[in-house]
Amino acid sequence: MQVHSSEQYHGETVESMETEQAENVSEKASEGSPSSSSSSSSSSSCNANSGAAAPSSPKKKQVSEMDTMKERFAKLLLGEDMSGSGEGVSSALALSNALTNLAASVFGEQWKLEPMSEERKARWRREVGWLVSVTDYIVEFVASEQKGKDGTNMEIMVTQQRKDLLMNIPALRKLDTMLLDTLDNFKTKQEYWYVSRDADESEKGVQRGDKWWLPTIKVLPNGLSEDSRLFMQKQKDAVIQVLKASMAINAQILSDMDVPENYLETLPKNGKSCLGDSIYKSITDEVFDPQQFLSTLDLSSENKVVDIKDRIEASIVIWKRKMNNKDNKPSWGFNVSAEKRGLFEERLETILILLKHKFPGLPQSSLDVTKIQYNNDAGLAILESYSRVLETLANTVMSRIDDVLYADSMARKSVVGATMLPTKSNVMSAGDEPTEKMSCSTNRPISRTMTLLDYMGWGVEPEKCCFDV
Amino acid sequence: MQVHSSEQYHGETVESMETEQAENVSEKASEGSPSSSSSSSSSSSCNANSGAAAPSSPKKKQVSEMDTMKERFAKLLLGEDMSGSGEGVSSALALSNALTNLAASVFGEQWKLEPMSEERKARWRREVGWLVSVTDYIVEFVASEQKGKDGTNMEIMVTQQRKDLLMNIPALRKLDTMLLDTLDNFKTKQEYWYVSRDADESEKGVQRGDKWWLPTIKVLPNGLSEDSRLFMQKQKDAVIQVLKASMAINAQILSDMDVPENYLETLPKNGKSCLGDSIYKSITDEVFDPQQFLSTLDLSSENKVVDIKDRIEASIVIWKRKMNNKDNKPSWGFNVSAEKRGLFEERLETILILLKHKFPGLPQSSLDVTKIQYNNDAGLAILESYSRVLETLANTVMSRIDDVLYADSMARKSVVGATMLPTKSNVMSAGDEPTEKMSCSTNRPISRTMTLLDYMGWGVEPEKCCFDV
Repeated sequence: MQVHSSEQYHGETVESMETEQAENVSEKASEGSPSSSSSSSSSSSCNANSGAAAPSSPKKKQVSEMDTMKERFAKLLLGEDMSGSGEGVSSALALSNALTNLAASVFGEQWKLEPMSEERKARWRREVGWLVSVTDYIVEFVASEQKGKDGTNMEIMVTQQRKDLLMNIPALRKLDTMLLDTLDNFKTKQEYWYVSRDADESEKGVQRGDKWWLPTIKVLPNGLSEDSRLFMQKQKDAVIQVLKASMAINAQILSDMDVPENYLETLPKNGKSCLGDSIYKSITDEVFDPQQFLSTLDLSSENKVVDIKDRIEASIVIWKRKMNNKDNKPSWGFNVSAEKRGLFEERLETILILLKHKFPGLPQSSLDVTKIQYNNDAGLAILESYSRVLETLANTVMSRIDDVLYADSMARKSVVGATMLPTKSNVMSAGDEPTEKMSCSTNRPISRTMTLLDYMGWGVEPEKCCFDV
Repeated sequence: MQVHSSEQYHGETVESMETEQAENVSEKASEGSPSSSSSSSSSSSCNANSGAAAPSSPKKKQVSEMDTMKERFAKLLLGEDMSGSGEGVSSALALSNALTNLAASVFGEQWKLEPMSEERKARWRREVGWLVSVTDYIVEFVASEQKGKDGTNMEIMVTQQRKDLLMNIPALRKLDTMLLDTLDNFKTKQEYWYVSRDADESEKGVQRGDKWWLPTIKVLPNGLSEDSRLFMQKQKDAVIQVLKASMAINAQILSDMDVPENYLETLPKNGKSCLGDSIYKSITDEVFDPQQFLSTLDLSSENKVVDIKDRIEASIVIWKRKMNNKDNKPSWGFNVSAEKRGLFEERLETILILLKHKFPGLPQSSLDVTKIQYNNDAGLAILESYSRVLETLANTVMSRIDDVLYADSMARKSVVGATMLPTKSNVMSAGDEPTEKMSCSTNRPISRTMTLLDYMGWGVEPEKCCFDV
């Protein structure tokens, strides 16, 4: 399942309902099992999803928490196959799905710019903690110097958390905290408020885009004060940093995942049949200008962009394989020399990066989805899903901020009565619900203050994360 | 790994040490991971195995318990592959191994007939509870009648714990409790005591067989009182019932498991090459007397018995497959008609049963081991391993009781000075450490009081569990 844009959370609340039904099912299972080992499992099912009234004592609460944890882990172990026969998914995929479903269930109804309830926050922290804690036990051997009893230095092998997890898990936790703290900052009543979608037409406020399921927004007649606007912008900057960082981690993890056999089997024979004549011709021309090339593509809908991305990624995989095979086999007189193929591949990689920056909320490509589906590495699964849900949550929060800024710009427009065109930083094109194209930030100049990436000390070159000015 | 005889626990204490090392490893892993999510995981590693001093408050203890549980489940999810790459074993096998290792670690040093320490008992109950609780979530759909709002009867599908688990898990828990309670009955000082194996030769007592690792036993000069002897016998009867019941469940579960492809691939082409000429000739004779046939076999060592069992089981599998194929394919003019093959197969099954009764402590056959190794059904895995460890523990306890009864008989013999030959019920042949041949019970008449099996209401025919009189 793809969780890649804030608007998709709406769809995923259906899944949260399914999760709840599944938990009611397991509740019935406990009832049907008279000698069930877990006497409080039915209460744990309730607690797990609905966040019902806490049990009367701390001890009961703790016991109930343990029961919920047992249930979560049991279902992961069964690979989501409740028949127990082992026809389920791998542990890695089960963990990935669990994180995705948890996020959908917890954040799926973040329709307002307001702090999460303490209960929901606690549930998120607790259950993410359980899932991510599996990575505590993924280790590797590293050499370590220790002083022997006689004072000599000995080098021994000790175990340490695997490097990619050691680096990325703390970073993701920081991003998680940053996002929730940002939401918390909206706790004092601002100069805007929400009107239920069921309210009278005359009562309703402004809605950005055609997101009928969201409440509408009203601001004071003169719009937000300068302070408020600066405050909103500051929150948005923080959220953008989180978004960039999550995207960077997610992209890195996806590239670390192996290309599955299944995907390779579905590939066409060569890059040309993959890309189509027109794109192939442009890519293989003497002269290549990425921006000019982009302008020739039909990027008018999300599906079309995803399709181009799919085809480009497939070609890159085909060409990489050919280059690897060529190292081993004698030349068969290929039409294209290896060196040229390498050049074309680089060009395609550049296009991919530009597409990513232009459409950061794009759903995952076929290659990404297949990688996740067939990945067996639990560590990579957790990193990928955690970074992906944080990316999605960051998108959601940013969207909610933009909703308010839009309402503000509408209010000021009507007040001033001038042709104060909404700046690109305030307006989203309507009708693109599934994708947050983030063109609102596309034209923002790159901030020269210390970014989160700098803070994390990562070597991500700034130009890779900047948008077109 | 086979855990099938009390004497093997000695070997398995090595594994419990390995488990401890593994947990120290994970402790170091936590230290190497500065932002590890689980701050008290190092204390949990200590608590998990050594049962070190409990944390200072109930809350800390509960948190530490949760950390230990998280660690257990994480390692299960990783399939025992700490690199996280997914090269580990299936969840089913991981659960099976975990139960086996837990039992070895907890009972591995049950060298005396005495109650388990409260701490060890609590650890056993807690950790078995975690592992077995996975079966709470293995469910199936069953039809259930419910009254609709208008009073009409509706049939709807509800979920209920899978039938085999619904039946067997409570039974196994009862057997578990019975065994521990039996050990508890030995809490008051009886008329015997143990002498450490490190004691002076002159201090040492009696040792049954050549079990140098066990403490020796001393009884009062006149042996046990009549009351004590009856008491011991009563405990032994209870343990025998537990043993029979566990064996029955274990056998049933193993027969429910599929024969793995790997095993089928290693089979010879036909039963004859499997069994060898001599056995094949006897089995296919016109007249067949099971007891007489048994007497012709070389059953002088455990390995030989296991070898015969392996070959018989393999032949049965080969013949069953041929019969199934014969239903589908035209006859190729087999040398042996299907009907006759069925008869030979029945004869082999009879021999298997007799061998099982004669040598109940026998290690598992190749077929059993392969089934367990390739089984993917978590429910079956838990049932098989739980029944197996209870069988082994029952054997252990019975062995300890027999040690005391042997010392008693030695004492009485020297007192009376008569040629009171040790009865078969008191003596084990020395030198057979790995196997409890249970010839001590072989000649016991079948008890006509209500057996545990009757109590459980199982339809296991008494003759299948009786021994030769």
